[in-house]
Amino acid sequence: MENPQEYTIRHHLAYYECDQSSHPSLSMLVAMAVLVSERHAEEMGCGRAAGLKHNGAWIILSYEGQLSAEQPVFGDEIILGTKMVGVNRFFAQREFWLADLAGHRFATMTGQLSFVDLTKRRIQAIPDELVAPFHAPKLKGLTRPRNQEELTKETADRQAGYQVRYFDIDGNHHVNNTRYFDWMLDPLGADFLNRHQLRRFNISYKNEVRYPDQVISRYKLQTSSKDEAKSMNQIFVGDKLCADASFLWQKREN
Amino acid sequence: MENPQEYTIRHHLAYYECDQSSHPSLSMLVAMAVLVSERHAEEMGCGRAAGLKHNGAWIILSYEGQLSAEQPVFGDEIILGTKMVGVNRFFAQREFWLADLAGHRFATMTGQLSFVDLTKRRIQAIPDELVAPFHAPKLKGLTRPRNQEELTKETADRQAGYQVRYFDIDGNHHVNNTRYFDWMLDPLGADFLNRHQLRRFNISYKNEVRYPDQVISRYKLQTSSKDEAKSMNQIFVGDKLCADASFLWQKREN
Repeated sequence: MENPQEYTIRHHLAYYECDQSSHPSLSMLVAMAVLVSERHAEEMGCGRAAGLKHNGAWIILSYEGQLSAEQPVFGDEIILGTKMVGVNRFFAQREFWLADLAGHRFATMTGQLSFVDLTKRRIQAIPDELVAPFHAPKLKGLTRPRNQEELTKETADRQAGYQVRYFDIDGNHHVNNTRYFDWMLDPLGADFLNRHQLRRFNISYKNEVRYPDQVISRYKLQTSSKDEAKSMNQIFVGDKLCADASFLWQKREN
Repeated sequence: MENPQEYTIRHHLAYYECDQSSHPSLSMLVAMAVLVSERHAEEMGCGRAAGLKHNGAWIILSYEGQLSAEQPVFGDEIILGTKMVGVNRFFAQREFWLADLAGHRFATMTGQLSFVDLTKRRIQAIPDELVAPFHAPKLKGLTRPRNQEELTKETADRQAGYQVRYFDIDGNHHVNNTRYFDWMLDPLGADFLNRHQLRRFNISYKNEVRYPDQVISRYKLQTSSKDEAKSMNQIFVGDKLCADASFLWQKREN
């Protein structure tokens, strides 16, 4: 029998999952990770409907990920994979990956999840029937990214405003978590984004962004050498920090 | 042998191709139409690389489409189809459809295309090798939507501004045509969009929107009855009309 902790699907990479580099955008990379984990949960009888029986839903607390220098191109057939790494009473940890058909990984991510009561809007113990089928080991500790200092208009290199749009909301009736990446990276501008390739990232979700909030995206370049750059990027609604991230960029050759 | 005019692929509908209704958003519906037509062209040896040999690329002039009341839900396996309907020296017409596995159509669209010289940025005759393999009939006339009066800030019911973002640009290094739909529909607001289901639409692309333009989206509700509503929606950059569309909406029951 297959390992119930792991699940993979084949995926034909669409052009609209890629940015102008012809490789998957970060928001779509994470969206594909969510896609395979939702299919995994459905397959195990632990999908959205099972969560709603407990008046709850999974939320993502944080991601961290590494990307290879080599990335797939739209039109490629790839593997999306996920593994339920560990679970305890309040938290679960999943691994996600994108790979070629030979299993060579383009990206590996780890995500920390918890389960919220949809009425009280707060974390509740994870119902056993939602995780037992995976036979995942007991999760010891969380490896969440550490908090960074909050950027202000003055300490940021730049800030830009983004109105939350109707189509930022997904079938869960919440602003899709992956949109935060588009808001975070856009202020860096075409010149920076075309010259740099993302190699590592982490993000912590702190507070929910809602429709039709006005989001403020701030960034600061922390280090920049001949070969790489590091940025911290934060999303605010008013004075409230909603997401805190850092990105490691490798300069593209040419 | 199969009819070279037609091409279909199976597609597993991802949650991020759907909006909060759990059905495909209009922008993703059109993106999936483009996806299947690009795969069709690739399959026939008439893809992007073949176009670039002539220093050219296809552009879309207009779409019109009809949507059924019944729509697929994320997770569904669907069919994406396309047919090269007709071709003449300067124009081509394609049909696109989304269907269930039994062939029942959720949406049918027609698109008018031309071929542009990428240096001169203007329409050129379609190279024969890009269309001959389809054995499509001679296209008589174009059926483009008629022009509507240009909305102004005063004559529009509402206008909203949208900054073109880095991730609006696709692998063709142009603002993706499907983004226009998100800009067009967002100003209608959640209240309207949640209560209405799109049943028919047409759009004419008039001028290219570029990064980092500031887009103005204007709409006017033209008719609204107990059962349906009709809106005209236009995209401007400055005073220049970039896209002109109309949408027929059916009120949702409940």
